[in-house]
Amino acid sequence: MSRTYYDVTLPYSPDLPAWPGESKPVIRRINDMDEGDGVNVSRIDACVHFGTHVDAPVHFIDGDRAAESLDVAVMVGPALVVEFPDAPAITADMLEGAGIPHDVDRILFKTRNSELWNNPAHDFFEDFAAIAADGAQWLVDRGVRLVGVDYLSIESFHTTDFAVHKTILGAGIVAVEGLDLRPVSGGVYEMACLPMKIVGADGAPARVVLWRDD
Amino acid sequence: MSRTYYDVTLPYSPDLPAWPGESKPVIRRINDMDEGDGVNVSRIDACVHFGTHVDAPVHFIDGDRAAESLDVAVMVGPALVVEFPDAPAITADMLEGAGIPHDVDRILFKTRNSELWNNPAHDFFEDFAAIAADGAQWLVDRGVRLVGVDYLSIESFHTTDFAVHKTILGAGIVAVEGLDLRPVSGGVYEMACLPMKIVGADGAPARVVLWRDD
Repeated sequence: MSRTYYDVTLPYSPDLPAWPGESKPVIRRINDMDEGDGVNVSRIDACVHFGTHVDAPVHFIDGDRAAESLDVAVMVGPALVVEFPDAPAITADMLEGAGIPHDVDRILFKTRNSELWNNPAHDFFEDFAAIAADGAQWLVDRGVRLVGVDYLSIESFHTTDFAVHKTILGAGIVAVEGLDLRPVSGGVYEMACLPMKIVGADGAPARVVLWRDD
Repeated sequence: MSRTYYDVTLPYSPDLPAWPGESKPVIRRINDMDEGDGVNVSRIDACVHFGTHVDAPVHFIDGDRAAESLDVAVMVGPALVVEFPDAPAITADMLEGAGIPHDVDRILFKTRNSELWNNPAHDFFEDFAAIAADGAQWLVDRGVRLVGVDYLSIESFHTTDFAVHKTILGAGIVAVEGLDLRPVSGGVYEMACLPMKIVGADGAPARVVLWRDD
């Protein structure tokens, strides 16, 4: 048996776009062999919502669950990649027409956004494709437990009410943002989406890997 | 089919012991709904070797590979948990006598260290069990590709030559440190050990999950 792996995680560096107003991460060596130290040791100072990451419910719902309590049973298992290559918004109608099996727990949406990662150092792009409010409600009603998107938010940059975040996170769905889905096409994969287990945090950087056994 | 998951990752917080001389992480909210913001957003400022993490070769071998280039095919797949409950050091003789199959790529050592995580907020414990220099060479000779330990270093705190790190990392083996192996006993599990994909870093925080299908 051979297994093919797809790393759908963005390379984590200050080159990636940050959410407008958010400071980029600072990654620096505090011990450096080039300066005579016996070892290289780095520190990282970053927003937990930078790069590929998950949102915890407490991001938008004060007092709700934080990153350390997201369920690994939700974050490891089969995931369905669904392609919507042209749509600016993922609506309930589109989801209803996509033939998504009723027992799917984890869905990753591959949109036109993924092409933005051809240049990981691009400036933040405001008009990314995202989940519409009625699409979010569809996902909740269907009992989906994890949803992933290929830009930095599940929700339009132009939202004023944050209905998508509140609907998704309020239902306890794990939201995965900042995926690079260029390596995969539609279909079912095994997935491990593993965020840092940061106690009390509203989100956490995550490494996300898909694979298939041939 | 039911699947049982074992999260062998330490809860990431300043309560955990830091390596002596290393500053603890600072996790703080930069937006806080308790203070009238519309959202909670946190930043983290931390050494990449704190808590459950991997070492990249460049940690001890200047110019060698960094965290972003560690191979996901090595970090996701079957792993053997080997228990050495009494030993202060894991030697070549012990490994030779442990009946480890020749085709094992990933080994996690469960030692007396794991009991230290009964209190995750304990003070750093210098005399943790670790891999001996000849044990490291045995792992290289056997072609192991990933090795994990249940305290904060693969190598004794009292080393002066860092032979274990240099041998393991020099062979391109992924070193996983700071596992909490209390939930598991000896045997084979599926594993996902997924570190942050930090470009250029000598290590990275990792989430490590084991599972078995029943």
